[in-house]
Amino acid sequence: MTQEKVALIGSGNWGSAIAKIVGSNVLQNAEFDKEVRMWVFEEMVDGRKLTEIINNDHENVKYLPGIKLPESIVAVPDLLECVRDATTLIFVVPHQFLKGICKSLLGNIRPDARAISLIKGLDASADGMRLFSQVIADVLNIEVSVLSGANIANEVAEEMFCESTIGSKRKEDGEVFYKLFNTPYFRITVVEDVAGVEICGALKNIVAVGAGFIDGLKLGENTKAAIMRIGLMEMKRFACTFWSGVKEETFYESCGVADLITTCAGGRNRKVAEAHVVTGRSFDELEREMLNGQKLQGTLAAHEVHDYLKAKNMTAEFPLFTRIYQIVYENTPASSIVEGL
Amino acid sequence: MTQEKVALIGSGNWGSAIAKIVGSNVLQNAEFDKEVRMWVFEEMVDGRKLTEIINNDHENVKYLPGIKLPESIVAVPDLLECVRDATTLIFVVPHQFLKGICKSLLGNIRPDARAISLIKGLDASADGMRLFSQVIADVLNIEVSVLSGANIANEVAEEMFCESTIGSKRKEDGEVFYKLFNTPYFRITVVEDVAGVEICGALKNIVAVGAGFIDGLKLGENTKAAIMRIGLMEMKRFACTFWSGVKEETFYESCGVADLITTCAGGRNRKVAEAHVVTGRSFDELEREMLNGQKLQGTLAAHEVHDYLKAKNMTAEFPLFTRIYQIVYENTPASSIVEGL
Repeated sequence: MTQEKVALIGSGNWGSAIAKIVGSNVLQNAEFDKEVRMWVFEEMVDGRKLTEIINNDHENVKYLPGIKLPESIVAVPDLLECVRDATTLIFVVPHQFLKGICKSLLGNIRPDARAISLIKGLDASADGMRLFSQVIADVLNIEVSVLSGANIANEVAEEMFCESTIGSKRKEDGEVFYKLFNTPYFRITVVEDVAGVEICGALKNIVAVGAGFIDGLKLGENTKAAIMRIGLMEMKRFACTFWSGVKEETFYESCGVADLITTCAGGRNRKVAEAHVVTGRSFDELEREMLNGQKLQGTLAAHEVHDYLKAKNMTAEFPLFTRIYQIVYENTPASSIVEGL
Repeated sequence: MTQEKVALIGSGNWGSAIAKIVGSNVLQNAEFDKEVRMWVFEEMVDGRKLTEIINNDHENVKYLPGIKLPESIVAVPDLLECVRDATTLIFVVPHQFLKGICKSLLGNIRPDARAISLIKGLDASADGMRLFSQVIADVLNIEVSVLSGANIANEVAEEMFCESTIGSKRKEDGEVFYKLFNTPYFRITVVEDVAGVEICGALKNIVAVGAGFIDGLKLGENTKAAIMRIGLMEMKRFACTFWSGVKEETFYESCGVADLITTCAGGRNRKVAEAHVVTGRSFDELEREMLNGQKLQGTLAAHEVHDYLKAKNMTAEFPLFTRIYQIVYENTPASSIVEGL
């Protein structure tokens, strides 16, 4: 039996939390090679290289401070060294870097490698809309699974119980990924529906913006729950309308209802949207002040989804997504959020 | 065309909020008689009869203060006078009074009356477990629909937007109840699945007790969302296993996922369970102190459901319900809640 050799492409907050799980599981399972190379974009932290810190101190002090990583995790600054001989690739990078990374990998990975994407979002362009798993598959011509769930990285790293969902088209991929990710505190369910799992992770932040408006308007628990439920139904309708093979049950999994609950309870999308209503200030201003200028995923996704629906003349079928777009980008009052639902 | 004549059996917090909606809708729809009699258990408030206060001041000062009721609502202290000639009966009384009320009504209602139950809970006894809609149907031999949703009474009375679900076996009943309850701020969806809708309302409080444990343990948003999701799945499994005709989609309605979100966000079941973990004090003590001795619905339902599952040798299929029972009644530590899920 050939051993699975795992490469982890990414080392941010979520990538490091996942490194802890994957690094521990490979040590406990004979099917896996005992070294997991983790690609680290090299930077200096207090006069030391981040890769050196991770490899000597077994801690990503910059992105996941306070959490020990297993000794199986080996930080490497070179992307191609990271993936050399790997049979299993885990993509967990900010989505804006994905296409460049895939181009660098082309011709430099095993052609039979299997991949899994932990990246949230949708790739929207003039041609239409693609899932990031599809972007990877299109460039590298490999099979790509996805993982998504109610998984705040720091809580996972502290081993607080949660669940997550893996979507895999091929049964053997699902089995390998289950062994790689499942732990008693990080409970994996595998489903066949790749698109459904990934779309949940991409669209939940739009709903969280809506939930933030409700919080800002102080409309109470009934209304917030109604917006979350209607949002979940629009996520489902969007997925079922534009991708084939999406299953209704996927939205009952951790990637669906549970992640939506977590995202609408806390989270930056909810918070900034609430502040927008309470203070009357623009999203641009609030992003500068509250997020050091980082852009919210929810407002961006609302824009991409709206452009896509408008081009298809289908905004009327998604009244909540459309209204959230109008509130963010067209100065429609937030108090109109419940109209026409 | 004969007009529908509506009788409202009950006048507590939720009954009064519903009186506002129903009383307003009958005035706007020619199909309904313009008088809705509301049965009020007579009591004295500041030296005046409650029925007199309601009929003169159009406000239930005791159970829904600050909210005006439509003039169509006529409070009557006599149950049989309330239901005389009524074609539509709305049951919204505390469940412990239901059987006595049904016995009084037997032979005193129109045999072709249709009914709807807004009562939460399950009727558990040595014979097994019945829905309250079934209790009403068994005694009175009439068709009984149900209404349940993410509907905190005071928020509904203040016209904050929310949704609710009606389960009706007969299409014509669903149509009448839709016209009677739907408003722009109280949005009704009618489904055929009576049992599914009612079971959601009965079991959600068990899950809320579990959510309260998580809050008390400070286990974070991931874990709470996981418990809520697993709870929703056990609600679904319980309904689908023990009642026929239950539909998976019902749990996506307001009565399912939305009511669960509302109940696990606030609510007395969650609060007292949290206090149990934080203070280490017994539920009995906390109920005396926090609820003036009223009993929690969630712990009671956990007991009834556990007895039922145990008799059927099926506790293993419902690990979360079982663990919540053990924590409440068998001194199992709350921190064990995530084990064995």
